[in-house]
Amino acid sequence: MYRIGQGIDFHQMVEGREFWLGGVLIPHTKGALGHSDADVLLHAICDALLGALGLGDIGKHFPDTDPSLKNIDSKILLAKTYALIKDRGYSVVNIDSTILLQAPKIMKYATEMKEVIARIVEISPEDVSIKATTTEQMSFIGREEGIVATANILITKVQSQ
Amino acid sequence: MYRIGQGIDFHQMVEGREFWLGGVLIPHTKGALGHSDADVLLHAICDALLGALGLGDIGKHFPDTDPSLKNIDSKILLAKTYALIKDRGYSVVNIDSTILLQAPKIMKYATEMKEVIARIVEISPEDVSIKATTTEQMSFIGREEGIVATANILITKVQSQ
Amino acid sequence: MYRIGQGIDFHQMVEGREFWLGGVLIPHTKGALGHSDADVLLHAICDALLGALGLGDIGKHFPDTDPSLKNIDSKILLAKTYALIKDRGYSVVNIDSTILLQAPKIMKYATEMKEVIARIVEISPEDVSIKATTTEQMSFIGREEGIVATANILITKVQSQ
Repeated sequence: MYRIGQGIDFHQMVEGREFWLGGVLIPHTKGALGHSDADVLLHAICDALLGALGLGDIGKHFPDTDPSLKNIDSKILLAKTYALIKDRGYSVVNIDSTILLQAPKIMKYATEMKEVIARIVEISPEDVSIKATTTEQMSFIGREEGIVATANILITKVQSQ
Repeated sequence: MYRIGQGIDFHQMVEGREFWLGGVLIPHTKGALGHSDADVLLHAICDALLGALGLGDIGKHFPDTDPSLKNIDSKILLAKTYALIKDRGYSVVNIDSTILLQAPKIMKYATEMKEVIARIVEISPEDVSIKATTTEQMSFIGREEGIVATANILITKVQSQ
Repeated sequence: MYRIGQGIDFHQMVEGREFWLGGVLIPHTKGALGHSDADVLLHAICDALLGALGLGDIGKHFPDTDPSLKNIDSKILLAKTYALIKDRGYSVVNIDSTILLQAPKIMKYATEMKEVIARIVEISPEDVSIKATTTEQMSFIGREEGIVATANILITKVQSQ
């Protein structure tokens, strides 16, 4: 009755963009570059949800060539993605994620991010895990040129279906 | 009765090599460099299968110093790896994977890849997920010097055993 | 009754440090740089355990600003982390991990690492998987400037609770 999913997403960090992460606006000198609001954590979770049921990837469902998605709030993308899972009779057991970035410190926003995500995918905030790590100054992440998020998810078939 | 596995594999992308991915020959100006056919997705899945039962890694089972494996079709390696799982009474529940590459676009081959993989590990193509993402021009992947694949797997003990 | 967790950790490799990996001292010309003994594999497993229950991350529980943790044996951190899981009525089903490094060869130490980890988290060494891969000379890992470990974990609620 269980299935697993995984997601990983990359965005460049550039000046002049808002920094949305986990559905929360983070004060910072840079933001993630992308067609939507470029929320790397929500995108990784979308991909993990899609992957658990073999429904393709976020690029298939929300192509970055679609003008209607320009600067779109990724919470909307997550809600649409979750609806696909729910429609097939599955619920989320738990989500575990890690954000790879050198700066800023973001764990003080983790409680709010968990609440945002949990509300959308209809689980308890305790079932959403957000972790963060630097790459110890190494790579494009360490040079603050980019940000990566990974998410793993466990889903289960709802018993009554 | 469930166990999880993970795999990750890296290959350089160079001119003058065929580009095998997910058991499918992809038309491209470069291919992955390696001792076998260097199919990064099948290798990640092999490692995830081995990892789920603690059987070591692909380097242990198929060393790149073994001349008999020179340019070998990785579908053979996947079949041999899956046999180890099946022999121990396990079946695959689902596989979720992501291919990290800047070019070419490969999702149009995903259906064929899923069929190839599903046939070998004796599940439905719907239980094989293949996703792809660029790294937004960052890192060796963004410079098209290399390719990475990650795979997560859920296996279960077959009830009759 | 199942939950999943994931962890990833990065450390620079520098001269003049002992190289601790999976709780084992590895003979090498470099070691991982960090506040503790910088055991990248044990840290990834700690994060996977914490993530499975949404308990934050290793940086929250064991901050690198804490002088009492200077050069601490990461086996102590893993034992403390596992206690948090056990206290909540969970046991570990299996752990699968991959170490990304260019050198040295470390798989000959895998048996000892598995025994160390298994003893701490109270499972069989057969339920701890350690895999390794190079990055084919690419990135900071390929240049031997750093090391990365990833871990995925499956835990289950102990039935009697």
